[in-house]
Amino acid sequence: MNPLSSPLLTDHYQLMMLQSYLEQHMEETAVFELFVRKLAPGRNFMVAAGLEQALDFLENIRFSPEELAWLAPRFAPSLIAYLEQFRFDGDVHAMPEGSLFFPDEPILRITATLPQAQLVESRIMNLMHFETLIASKAARSVLVAPDKFLVDFGMRRAHGAEAALLAARASYLAGFSGTATVLAGAVYGIPLFGTLAHSYIQAHEDEATAFEQFAHCHPDNVILLIDTYDTEAAAAKVVALGRKLLACGIHVKGVRLDSGDLATHARQVRQILNEGGLEKTTIFASGNLDEYRLRALLSSATSPAAPIDGFGIGTALDVSSDAPSLDCAYKLQEYAGKARRKRSEGKATWPGRKQVYRKYNSADGSMAGDIVALAENDSHDGEPLIVPVMQAGRRINESTPLNEIRRRTLENYTRLPKPMTTLEVVTAYPVEISTSLRALAKHLDEVQSLDAI
Amino acid sequence: MNPLSSPLLTDHYQLMMLQSYLEQHMEETAVFELFVRKLAPGRNFMVAAGLEQALDFLENIRFSPEELAWLAPRFAPSLIAYLEQFRFDGDVHAMPEGSLFFPDEPILRITATLPQAQLVESRIMNLMHFETLIASKAARSVLVAPDKFLVDFGMRRAHGAEAALLAARASYLAGFSGTATVLAGAVYGIPLFGTLAHSYIQAHEDEATAFEQFAHCHPDNVILLIDTYDTEAAAAKVVALGRKLLACGIHVKGVRLDSGDLATHARQVRQILNEGGLEKTTIFASGNLDEYRLRALLSSATSPAAPIDGFGIGTALDVSSDAPSLDCAYKLQEYAGKARRKRSEGKATWPGRKQVYRKYNSADGSMAGDIVALAENDSHDGEPLIVPVMQAGRRINESTPLNEIRRRTLENYTRLPKPMTTLEVVTAYPVEISTSLRALAKHLDEVQSLDAI
Repeated sequence: MNPLSSPLLTDHYQLMMLQSYLEQHMEETAVFELFVRKLAPGRNFMVAAGLEQALDFLENIRFSPEELAWLAPRFAPSLIAYLEQFRFDGDVHAMPEGSLFFPDEPILRITATLPQAQLVESRIMNLMHFETLIASKAARSVLVAPDKFLVDFGMRRAHGAEAALLAARASYLAGFSGTATVLAGAVYGIPLFGTLAHSYIQAHEDEATAFEQFAHCHPDNVILLIDTYDTEAAAAKVVALGRKLLACGIHVKGVRLDSGDLATHARQVRQILNEGGLEKTTIFASGNLDEYRLRALLSSATSPAAPIDGFGIGTALDVSSDAPSLDCAYKLQEYAGKARRKRSEGKATWPGRKQVYRKYNSADGSMAGDIVALAENDSHDGEPLIVPVMQAGRRINESTPLNEIRRRTLENYTRLPKPMTTLEVVTAYPVEISTSLRALAKHLDEVQSLDAI
Repeated sequence: MNPLSSPLLTDHYQLMMLQSYLEQHMEETAVFELFVRKLAPGRNFMVAAGLEQALDFLENIRFSPEELAWLAPRFAPSLIAYLEQFRFDGDVHAMPEGSLFFPDEPILRITATLPQAQLVESRIMNLMHFETLIASKAARSVLVAPDKFLVDFGMRRAHGAEAALLAARASYLAGFSGTATVLAGAVYGIPLFGTLAHSYIQAHEDEATAFEQFAHCHPDNVILLIDTYDTEAAAAKVVALGRKLLACGIHVKGVRLDSGDLATHARQVRQILNEGGLEKTTIFASGNLDEYRLRALLSSATSPAAPIDGFGIGTALDVSSDAPSLDCAYKLQEYAGKARRKRSEGKATWPGRKQVYRKYNSADGSMAGDIVALAENDSHDGEPLIVPVMQAGRRINESTPLNEIRRRTLENYTRLPKPMTTLEVVTAYPVEISTSLRALAKHLDEVQSLDAI
């Protein structure tokens, strides 16, 4: 049973509920929406991602004979028979990947029979929560260092295999330049980076030999790690090597710093390289970086910005270190033609099928405010952000190439109000709930209050 | 290419280095060790986990024709030919899963040819970092609520499929009672829990009907979610239903609270249930819980402990919310018979092959202090924690059953000095570096300083 595709990667209660729904013949149409309740601390907006993987999951979900055999002694025969035939044949509406969104705005709507829409909940959330989390984290580094080369270095501390692979995808989608994770190159065509580790230097008898051997082995990709023993001493060795290599037509493309005070080392190394005639050799930095450290390194407030050309961002990106989860939910908004509303304390939802309209300032095209409205008979000015993406279980359009999504995300950033592109939390972006939607919620509260008596 | 098994789930630099090692015939024996540099904030100890998955990976790593075809245009033919035959045939020493450990103590040592030991780095770390992270987080809830029923509810916000599955394993290993993730039941035999969601209640015309239908469908597992609309009103419905069900021989096993002030609701609900004759119906709580909220709910400092019998812990557990990564490293400690030492600022390592000896207080058997020593000719009193687990690429012993690892972990907790079992950070547990190990490090520094000149 492969966790990446097994429908058993779900919560136990889904199967318990399914058995009960089938016994009660509750198979009418249900509408669930996925949304974020509130922004993660420090964030001004979120970047939608993971739709592609969610649609793959919906198109391919099947129970194998092995899985059915495992379930058989644990659930009613009627449920097993149902799962044997299980296909998702519902409709999906969503914001395209790379869309910027805010709390209470659905990014996905699933319309299907109640058992179908219920069963897919856990994995749909698992996929879209994670990629949205990482894309939203990556966006911050991209906005803080827009002219720099940013590479995902996080595989080793990502939470498992799928997280490593999808973090590379989500961060590239959000504007990173590439990743160190080879599989992400093979699967998604994301540009790959990374040359050598400290162990390579240590395994050689001396650092200079290690540098030279590497350069001859990879003449087109000479980016040397120079902090294993003494960073500035190593930079001097790079200069000496640079002269030798020039005779063979090899250029030292770059050096990498991975420890210590990166700004100070970068300045000293830049000077050593320049004085040694290696003005074109770039400086790449890594080691416990995140968007805050990028901002500090690139700030020219008190001293000139550190002369660093690119950054490898690892753990902080792949685990979204300052906010490793989002307060997201997948909630039943309608069943059998009637809108539904959960009213649990602090967790009440806006009922019904919804659309989000976005207005832009005519002067500069920047985002001016959103309206969350009912999907039908409640139209508003602005761009409707939620579009149909799957009908009767099949994708409506071919998948958008990842580079195209990335381009669109970068374009979306240009429409953010300027203060929202910083790491400071600004006044919340205006998201209005339409009058019709408020009226529906109020009506449902009154009906449900009667039930509670 | 399945990310769970593909050897392309690695960092790009591993392949770059491999090509260079092969060209230089650097295939002598290398020794790498995996350790944590410092405790995550708030932690007093770590719980080793993930060895089983790491050994699976080492036994099965292969490059498929498809993967080789993708690599071929990107790397030297000599590397492709090498990878085609690639097998891991090295030795592995490790602390058993469930061992409690501290900074600078290796939990894994790999002894293999340099290319082999290097290539496996990224995935070995990816696996062992994550499970150790989660087991160490889970241990905190187990120690804070030792007599309570704890269930992993985190699948939906775990970082991808493998994280969800392995979080269930790691938390069970650390003493949880079970998980909601069905696949973890199928793959690891972990007990499964979970009955119904708010959507189940919402999909019915009224709450009482929903409760009754569920009870008849799952008469042996009637645990009802009571916070969808009004918790106390729902508890009263449960009492009324309880009487009806008794006639059919069905007992209401429990109720679940998922929102609001859990302590207050639990007290009120307990009273309603008791007055209604449902004294044996348990109260289960969930909703943004972690070990700190457990401690607060169970504290009897200012008012009696909340009458809650079990807890579902989700996101905070599966993402290790307060410390979503560990500062761990996999470092070259020896190559071609010579010890090696990385000296990067703030990241220096202890060189050579190491063993950890643990002493216990003779009075009560509690842990008294560890010594990190050289693995050979540096023996000390105490229990050696690192044992051989793989020889020439094959496991030495059969896998330990997960329940046995769990039992051993719980036993290990009983040997913790009492203050270390709380959520307060106490004086660091004494970990001594042996005189011989210090001498080796000093010797290497002197040799390497000569190189840097």
